[in-house]
Amino acid sequence: MLWLLARGLKRMTTLHYLQTPALLLDPEALDANIGAMHAALPGPRLRPHVKAHKCTAIAARQRDAGHALFCCATVREMEGMAAAGLGEDLLLANEVVDASRLGALDARITLAVDSETTVEAAARGGVKEVLIDVNVGLPRCGCKPEAAGALADLARRQGLGVRGVMGYEGHIMGVEERGEREAACTASMALLREAHEQVGGEIISAGGTGTFDCNVYASEIQAGSYVLMDTAYAKLGLPFVQAFWVLATVISVGDGFAVADCGLKALGMDHGNPHVDGARIWFCSDEHLTFAPEAPVKVGDRIRVVPAHVDPTVAYHARFHVIEGERVVDEWPVDLRGW
Amino acid sequence: MLWLLARGLKRMTTLHYLQTPALLLDPEALDANIGAMHAALPGPRLRPHVKAHKCTAIAARQRDAGHALFCCATVREMEGMAAAGLGEDLLLANEVVDASRLGALDARITLAVDSETTVEAAARGGVKEVLIDVNVGLPRCGCKPEAAGALADLARRQGLGVRGVMGYEGHIMGVEERGEREAACTASMALLREAHEQVGGEIISAGGTGTFDCNVYASEIQAGSYVLMDTAYAKLGLPFVQAFWVLATVISVGDGFAVADCGLKALGMDHGNPHVDGARIWFCSDEHLTFAPEAPVKVGDRIRVVPAHVDPTVAYHARFHVIEGERVVDEWPVDLRGW
Repeated sequence: MLWLLARGLKRMTTLHYLQTPALLLDPEALDANIGAMHAALPGPRLRPHVKAHKCTAIAARQRDAGHALFCCATVREMEGMAAAGLGEDLLLANEVVDASRLGALDARITLAVDSETTVEAAARGGVKEVLIDVNVGLPRCGCKPEAAGALADLARRQGLGVRGVMGYEGHIMGVEERGEREAACTASMALLREAHEQVGGEIISAGGTGTFDCNVYASEIQAGSYVLMDTAYAKLGLPFVQAFWVLATVISVGDGFAVADCGLKALGMDHGNPHVDGARIWFCSDEHLTFAPEAPVKVGDRIRVVPAHVDPTVAYHARFHVIEGERVVDEWPVDLRGW
Repeated sequence: MLWLLARGLKRMTTLHYLQTPALLLDPEALDANIGAMHAALPGPRLRPHVKAHKCTAIAARQRDAGHALFCCATVREMEGMAAAGLGEDLLLANEVVDASRLGALDARITLAVDSETTVEAAARGGVKEVLIDVNVGLPRCGCKPEAAGALADLARRQGLGVRGVMGYEGHIMGVEERGEREAACTASMALLREAHEQVGGEIISAGGTGTFDCNVYASEIQAGSYVLMDTAYAKLGLPFVQAFWVLATVISVGDGFAVADCGLKALGMDHGNPHVDGARIWFCSDEHLTFAPEAPVKVGDRIRVVPAHVDPTVAYHARFHVIEGERVVDEWPVDLRGW
């Protein structure tokens, strides 16, 4: 009985006893990233995007450090943030055709709109405030810059407050050469400024982790990935460090390769294979990672896998295991999953 | 009040009111696939793999149609199947270094082992029976064929029942030319037969949806995807039909493209972009699918997205919405997620 108790305690308190695959979060690295971002973009200059972490405990840490305005990608994220008391100023930076769940929230809600239909959906759903979403070069959502003024007028006629514009320059977020990234950002923001001149309002919301320090046109930056990071953003030479990993267990060792229990269902794969220090990745299967380690590994060894894309990786997991060295000191639910 | 009630009812009963993205399941197509598989591989000739659907309601449908032995990829899947009363004969076709959760289950449990460490883990965890997992050409788990006999001896010395061998020819599952697939399968199964001659036991477990009718060497086939299908398996000319989709809503329309609310967090992306009838896919973002439709679409339209890879797609969702035409008649939880 005492043995069982001690074993249960160990399970909670060291990495060795974690069921794998498991998300690990280093709170020191997290705080370093939050601090570095705060130094560059204090207070309302940043509107952290919660889609990267989907975790109200991380959002609360961002709020406590001075970033209290948030950005979401789904209605579920908006609901969860409001329920967690993080609803001082929530922007859904995405279009919806049914806004009724948003109108019901006890929080300050602003919704992106880019068409007559989405303006009408906002009004019908009981939303009070909107941003006009503008296409600044990424063929995704957003109206044409020259159509923004008429949409703002329509919104005002429907009784909506128009706080300004947003436009996401997502097509240049991963451009590795900084000069090229800056030039493309300037071109995108010229389109957003053109729209803003017609729309008015105090908010020009744009940007992301890749352009947080070269987008000097936006009044607020919608960055999310900086807080956790991944191998794609690591290539850009940004002042942020890797703060999360997928812990995996080596379950098989072959001739020149080994296999860990972390596969396609524990990793977002759209940016390709993950990274493991001191190893070359061969391929991922549903529940397996086959890799060639430089130094021998044995069955039972633990490895840390660095995901290629943070957002779709986190969305597969139910919780972060918060660590201090080899100790697991807390669990933070990934409580904003689903839609 | 009555209006609200009617609206709530509608939400439950037609596709138009579903929150998107949402998994749709056509039970007629599902039953057709189960029936086609049963015609080819009746009763114990098939051991359906639950990793593709992670849903005990679908597993129960497979059991009721005559396939009562199941295959799992994770400990969580084994636990969920046992708890759902589907534990007549469960194989964990994967290696683990801690089998204690398996040993505690009220079900017939068989575990794959491929090393001394995993044999010892099985015995220590209270598992009673094992299969010797053999590498038949896919560099993943599995011992060398010539090492299988010694591992079986070790397992028997540890008090474990050795039911036979397994080997997954996953490297040839997607080979599109049938003759080539058959030849590669024959070569893989020669390795498994070599191992089986040393190991003994009544089970030779292998195969998958891509080799279900050309692997004539295995005593049982571990197919899973056939029941739901995806665009990758659709290329092989198999007698199975698409039985699930991700329903999405058009939220924005641009010049020559449209955007739906189904992105990287609703789709497994390792096999590339999904398919939409009558449209060319441009790209996916976290919560968006940008596509060029052949005929005009408008904001609010619903589209059905066919995933490129079934398993990691289903793992992102909490439930299947079971449909009859445009009506939603049931919800089946994806209750085997996590680890």
